[in-house]
Amino acid sequence: MIQNKLELPLFEKKMIAYRDSVNAELIPAFLGDNELDVTKEAAIYSLTVGGKRLRPILMLSIGEMFALKRESVLPFALAIEMIHTYSLIHDDLPCMDNDDLRRGNPTCHVKFGEAIALLAGDALLNRAYEYLLYSSLTLGHESIRAASFLAEMAGSNGMIAGQTLDMESEGHEITPETLELLHRKKTGCLLEAAVRIPYLLTEPQDSQNEIDRILTKYARHIGLAFQMKDDILDVTSSLSVLGKSIGKDKKAMKSTYVTLYGLDRAKILLENEMQGAFSALEEMDQTGLDTSFLYNLTQYLLQRSN
Amino acid sequence: MIQNKLELPLFEKKMIAYRDSVNAELIPAFLGDNELDVTKEAAIYSLTVGGKRLRPILMLSIGEMFALKRESVLPFALAIEMIHTYSLIHDDLPCMDNDDLRRGNPTCHVKFGEAIALLAGDALLNRAYEYLLYSSLTLGHESIRAASFLAEMAGSNGMIAGQTLDMESEGHEITPETLELLHRKKTGCLLEAAVRIPYLLTEPQDSQNEIDRILTKYARHIGLAFQMKDDILDVTSSLSVLGKSIGKDKKAMKSTYVTLYGLDRAKILLENEMQGAFSALEEMDQTGLDTSFLYNLTQYLLQRSN
Repeated sequence: MIQNKLELPLFEKKMIAYRDSVNAELIPAFLGDNELDVTKEAAIYSLTVGGKRLRPILMLSIGEMFALKRESVLPFALAIEMIHTYSLIHDDLPCMDNDDLRRGNPTCHVKFGEAIALLAGDALLNRAYEYLLYSSLTLGHESIRAASFLAEMAGSNGMIAGQTLDMESEGHEITPETLELLHRKKTGCLLEAAVRIPYLLTEPQDSQNEIDRILTKYARHIGLAFQMKDDILDVTSSLSVLGKSIGKDKKAMKSTYVTLYGLDRAKILLENEMQGAFSALEEMDQTGLDTSFLYNLTQYLLQRSN
Repeated sequence: MIQNKLELPLFEKKMIAYRDSVNAELIPAFLGDNELDVTKEAAIYSLTVGGKRLRPILMLSIGEMFALKRESVLPFALAIEMIHTYSLIHDDLPCMDNDDLRRGNPTCHVKFGEAIALLAGDALLNRAYEYLLYSSLTLGHESIRAASFLAEMAGSNGMIAGQTLDMESEGHEITPETLELLHRKKTGCLLEAAVRIPYLLTEPQDSQNEIDRILTKYARHIGLAFQMKDDILDVTSSLSVLGKSIGKDKKAMKSTYVTLYGLDRAKILLENEMQGAFSALEEMDQTGLDTSFLYNLTQYLLQRSN
C-alpha cells in the first residue's frame, strides 16, 4: 500500500534536522530580548525537557510539501509548540491531572511550585500570540487568517473544550462517543491546526477545497490514532520508556480506549485509524504532492514507544 | 487647576453609556456562536459579576477623543476586559492569592472548582487574541500593531512579570523600588495598553512622539494612583463597600503602600500621583484634544470607595 516513502536513514536525518532547528529557535522566540525571571525560567524548563516536537515538525514538513518559505511557517511552528507546552503545564497541575512526571522529568509545578507553573503556562500562551502578531506585521494577511484559525483550535471550542470534557469525565465511565469527542478536541484540534495551517498560508482561493478536505481527514485520523497509541502505551509500557507515570489513567478513574474497549480491540481501532491516515496520504499523492516524509512520519508516530 | 471638565450628571451619563455598551457586547464577543459548556459558563460568570470596566472605558473614551470609529476600538476594549478577567481568575486561585470573594461574589474557583476556573482563565486569554485576530482581518495593519502591543503589555515582561514579582514578594518586606516595579507591571501595564492603544490605532507616523509621551505619562500616574488607592481601601474600607476581603494584604504578609509608608504617607503619595495625572491631562489639553471626560474619570478613579 505504501509506495512512496523515504529510506529510513534519510527520514531520520530529516527528523533530526527539523527537531534541531525547532530546539535552536524555540527559546529565543519565547524569550525575545527580555530578561529572565523565575516564571520565564519555568517556561523554558518545560520547553526544553524533551518533547517530540511533533506539531512543529508536521508544520515545517507540510510547509515544505507546499514549497512555502520557511520563514512564513516557522513562527507558527514555534507558537504551536508554546501553546502545546502551556497546555501540558496546566494539565499537570494538582487541580487538573496532578502529574509529577512528564517526559521523564519532574513536572513544572513540582520543580517551581504551583503559582509559578500557572504563570509559566499563562506566559507561554500569551507569548505564542504575541510572537505571531509581531511576525504577522511582516508576513501579511494570510498569516492573520492562519493565526486566527490556530486560536480557534486552541480555544474554548477546541483544545480547552477537550480539557473541560476530560475534567468532567473523571471518576465515571463515559460513552465511546464522548471519549472520541474528548480526544478530537483535546489532542485533535492542535494536530489539525498543525496540518492545515501550512496550506492556509499558501493563500488558497477557497480554503474549503479538496486539498484542505484531505488534510483535515489525515489530521483527524492521526489525532485519534495518536491518542489510542497513548492509551495503549499507558498499560503496556514501562516508566523508564514512557517517561511518565504508568497506569495513571486507571488510577485517575479515567476512561480510555483500553478501559472502554479492552487492549485487543483498542489495537484494532488504532489500526483502523492508521489505515484512514494512509488512505488520506494516498489521496494527497494523487494531487501530485510529495507525501513521502509524511508516510514515514505517520509510521513513526504509530510505532513509537513513548 | 481643573478648567475643562464635564458637569457631573453628563459625566455619569457617559460612564453608564460606556459601561452598558461594554456589558452588552462582552459576552457575545467571548462566546461567539459556540455552545456553552461549564468552562465557558465559569468565564461568563467572572465576566459578569460586577467590574468597573475601567480599561474598556478608557479605550472607548480615548478613542472618541481621537475621533476613531467605534468599531475599530471596540474589539480592543472587549479583548482587554477578557485579559483583565483572566488575570483576576488566575490571581484568585488557591495557589496564588487564595481569595474567596471578588466584587462581592464568590470567586470563580469557589463557584466552579479549581480546574474549571483555571480553564476559564485560559479560555478568556485565548479568546481575547482569537477575537482580536479575527477582527484584524477587516481592520488592517494598525490593528495588528496595536494587538501586538497589547500582548506585550499582558505578557511575561508586562503583567505576568508583575504577578511573578508579587508571588516572590509574599511573606517578606520588599523595598519601595520593588513595590513600585511590581505595580507598574501588574496593574500599570494593562492600563498603559488601554490608554495608548487608541492612539496607536490612529496610524501615527511616529509612535514615539509627543502625544504618545503624554499618554504614557498619564497612564503611569493613574496606574500607580489606582494601586495606592486600592492599598488604602484595603485598610480603611469595609467588606460590604469593597466587595472583597478587608485587611487581606496584611494577612498575606504582603507589602503595600500602607505597610511600607503608613496610611498618612500613602495618602500623600496618592495625591502626588493624582497631580501627575492631572498635569499630563493639562499637557494634552494644550495639544487641542478634548480631555474633559478624562478629567472627570481621573477624579472618579481616585474618589471611588471600591
